[in-house]
Amino acid sequence: MRYDPNVELPRHGYHRDGLTEGEIAEQAAAAGPLAASVRELIDAVVRTEIAPAELDDVRHQVEALTERLRAQQFDGSYGIRFGEAGDLRNWGNAVVGLKNAIAPPLHVHRDGTRVWADVELGAAYEGPAGLAHGGVSALLLDQMLGEAAAAARAPGMTGTLTLRYRAGTPLGTPLRLEAYAERTGSIKAIARGRLTTRESEPTLCVEAEGIFILPRWARGADLDAN
Amino acid sequence: MRYDPNVELPRHGYHRDGLTEGEIAEQAAAAGPLAASVRELIDAVVRTEIAPAELDDVRHQVEALTERLRAQQFDGSYGIRFGEAGDLRNWGNAVVGLKNAIAPPLHVHRDGTRVWADVELGAAYEGPAGLAHGGVSALLLDQMLGEAAAAARAPGMTGTLTLRYRAGTPLGTPLRLEAYAERTGSIKAIARGRLTTRESEPTLCVEAEGIFILPRWARGADLDAN
Repeated sequence: MRYDPNVELPRHGYHRDGLTEGEIAEQAAAAGPLAASVRELIDAVVRTEIAPAELDDVRHQVEALTERLRAQQFDGSYGIRFGEAGDLRNWGNAVVGLKNAIAPPLHVHRDGTRVWADVELGAAYEGPAGLAHGGVSALLLDQMLGEAAAAARAPGMTGTLTLRYRAGTPLGTPLRLEAYAERTGSIKAIARGRLTTRESEPTLCVEAEGIFILPRWARGADLDAN
Repeated sequence: MRYDPNVELPRHGYHRDGLTEGEIAEQAAAAGPLAASVRELIDAVVRTEIAPAELDDVRHQVEALTERLRAQQFDGSYGIRFGEAGDLRNWGNAVVGLKNAIAPPLHVHRDGTRVWADVELGAAYEGPAGLAHGGVSALLLDQMLGEAAAAARAPGMTGTLTLRYRAGTPLGTPLRLEAYAERTGSIKAIARGRLTTRESEPTLCVEAEGIFILPRWARGADLDAN
């Protein structure tokens, strides 16, 4: 998504920081791998079996690293930022955010108005034993349906989301997420998607349908979904 | 939830590890604060503005900690474990898991068959600028509805989940989640819930309805939801 740099930003949480492409690339090159290392740490904390006293020691070191990162930080959340060239950065996003260790993160690809992403979920996404949490599938599919609405030039916030669980979503297995906008209007889009295993004969795990609505403040704000 | 220690465990991912209450308390006392410290680290990684070279240095230290935790770890996911007394531990769960830094975690309270939890979501749960990701609300509500079904002695896996988004869910604001089972049968329960702000005049942010189904393998397995 791009934002016309000549139009006033519509809302709190949207920042134009004027970073050059070089500055953005430099930030991404350090922040992306750091978030990835914390994803590994999250997994290791779930799965570790080292002794309690050692866990305490690791915790003290984690606290020291947090303090170091917090020596210089912004208030609140990352929001949506636009650099010099107008490119959108949502690096704090819980599903696709480059700086967010909670996000798997999804790398969403566009093929016309169809969007897709491949992912494998580890131990930190568990719900039922050995399976992804039903709410994690909902989280990923909400993002995918929103991306499909945006790809069809009808971006919006989730109005309704309906999920049908057809089979358990296995952890530690290649998965595919797909979505497309079925209908779009000037302020509303209906999107559909699904989560399957990535095999020669895929298992359909979850189906999703959602209505996405352009918020009032953004109507006429000339947001370009591409 | 408890599991009768005399009944055979139904499924891969369920373990009876025979830990005593003292051993469980000792593990919780170290693993809980460690996961909490990693939650702070996740937040700090999103919000930090320290220089890229420093981020690289922090990353190397995170990698060393991960390696230390992985020196002794189990394969796969945490699953569902039962100690000597039969108490269930789902410490890897993405919403309520004690060892899971992705989980806020929710502390779910029961008041008869009604369940509720208070939470405040930080920068790592962002979707739209300054607001919780719609899928994060779905994740939390899926767990709450499942807990409500279990509280009504009709535990199950999510069959369908429908969410209606009424207002944006603010980050950095006290929130309340509530749910109850509207109808229960021997293998199916219908649960409803909502997410509101926690104010004298709460804002209704999200409503949810779900059908929870006891999996085939668990029917007759004498799982006691309490």
